[in-house]
Amino acid sequence: MSGALPPLRTCHRFISLEGGEGAGKSTVLAALRHALEAAGQAVTCTREPGGTPLAEQIRGLLLDTHHEPPAAETELLLMFAARAQHVRETILPALARGEWVISDRFTDASYAYQGAARGGDVAFIAQLEQRVVGIQPAMTLLLDVPVAIGLQRARGRGATDRIEAEREDFFERVREGYLARAAADPARFRVVDASQSAEAVAEAVVAHLRALMERPA
Amino acid sequence: MSGALPPLRTCHRFISLEGGEGAGKSTVLAALRHALEAAGQAVTCTREPGGTPLAEQIRGLLLDTHHEPPAAETELLLMFAARAQHVRETILPALARGEWVISDRFTDASYAYQGAARGGDVAFIAQLEQRVVGIQPAMTLLLDVPVAIGLQRARGRGATDRIEAEREDFFERVREGYLARAAADPARFRVVDASQSAEAVAEAVVAHLRALMERPA
Ligand SMILES: Nc1ncnc2c1ncn2[C@@H]1O[C@H](COP(=O)(O)OP(=O)(O)O)[C@@H](O)[C@H]1O
Ligand SMILES: Nc1ncnc2c1ncn2[C@@H]1O[C@H](COP(=O)(O)OP(=O)(O)O)[C@@H](O)[C@H]1O
Ligand SMILES: [Mg+2]
Ligand SMILES: [Mg+2]
Repeated sequence: MSGALPPLRTCHRFISLEGGEGAGKSTVLAALRHALEAAGQAVTCTREPGGTPLAEQIRGLLLDTHHEPPAAETELLLMFAARAQHVRETILPALARGEWVISDRFTDASYAYQGAARGGDVAFIAQLEQRVVGIQPAMTLLLDVPVAIGLQRARGRGATDRIEAEREDFFERVREGYLARAAADPARFRVVDASQSAEAVAEAVVAHLRALMERPA
Repeated sequence: MSGALPPLRTCHRFISLEGGEGAGKSTVLAALRHALEAAGQAVTCTREPGGTPLAEQIRGLLLDTHHEPPAAETELLLMFAARAQHVRETILPALARGEWVISDRFTDASYAYQGAARGGDVAFIAQLEQRVVGIQPAMTLLLDVPVAIGLQRARGRGATDRIEAEREDFFERVREGYLARAAADPARFRVVDASQSAEAVAEAVVAHLRALMERPA
């Protein structure tokens, strides 16, 4: 039944940040916003799961530790339900206004977490991506860091959510999943060594942004 | 990528009730429960969207009128996220304990509402059904009633939720969608004229139940 699905549409001013817990995504987001605003560009910074009021409520169901835990299939569909809403209500409208959009996680996170780490069917994830997402960022910055370092940083932040509470081998599979995605699509991914200082990571990330800004749309 | 998906597994003691708003599903559920309990059978009565604490929270996101309304794709995935959880946490465990399970709506509702009425892609709904649901009821009782009668009954119940607030042509498409599903699978569906009195509807429905109870598993 699936036949040939239309390819994903690449959105020029759309950037996603990916990486495991504590890689430094939220830290780097601020540096990217600053660089864009200094260049006179309007920026929408957003995150997943979340990015609209409804999607943030779905995030609560996904990450709260007080709820009945979702089955793997439930988790996968909730992630894509939130993403479907996020694309339609936040990302596409901001791009249509001519803004840059930087998202702290996007579809690659589902391949890494629900796919590689949780064992979900990658072909089904690809179906969901094509049928309900339909777009991809022009550039995905993968902040790669050894799991132990990332977890140490993240735990310094305080309370852990349901996914952050997984075991270390889960996060090893997340990391490998991300690196495999990056290797399969080098035109879109930029892998940054996030074990460096926050300043060095920000500098590398902003250099990739400037290269994208100079590229014709 | 889809290849040949495994067929749905039919569960002998699993019955679903379908029909538009005000058709009388909740009313009939009580009659079915009574008939089964009188025959010494254990019964789990449940509903969709919902049927587990997490799935009931998803129901809230779907039906509340105070939230940001979900896009069509978000609605579809939230419905199947709730259903994935309902199957794994409530329906399959009850069937494994040897109980009967009667669900006030199940997957056919997604074909009628998100498919026929909302215009969703039926092939995609079928993919979701096969990949995250995997089971179907042995018998589906479709309570068929003209839209105007059903809406009049339902509005007598009080506050309308987000889907109940749709326009009449939406519910015409729901009704046609259900009748088309029934015509395509006469072995599973029993269509009941629900414009009859509540007593006559209950009698017809219980007669179908007794026929199923006599059938070898
Ligand atoms: N390159 C870095 N070196 C050391 N600490 C960092 C670095 N980047 C971020 N941190 C710190 O690690 C913690 C997690 O960073 P954060 O940006 O929240 O990660 P993420 O959003 O990827 O989970 C924060 O306390 C942050 O200040
Ligand atoms: N066959 C019937 N004739 C008249 N009224 C009915 C009938 N079946 C149910 N009702 C009434 O119509 C309303 C809606 O019935 P309900 O069982 O809640 O429908 P549903 O669950 O299908 O939306 C209730 O007030 C119920 O008492
Ligand atoms: Mg963060
Ligand atoms: Mg009802």
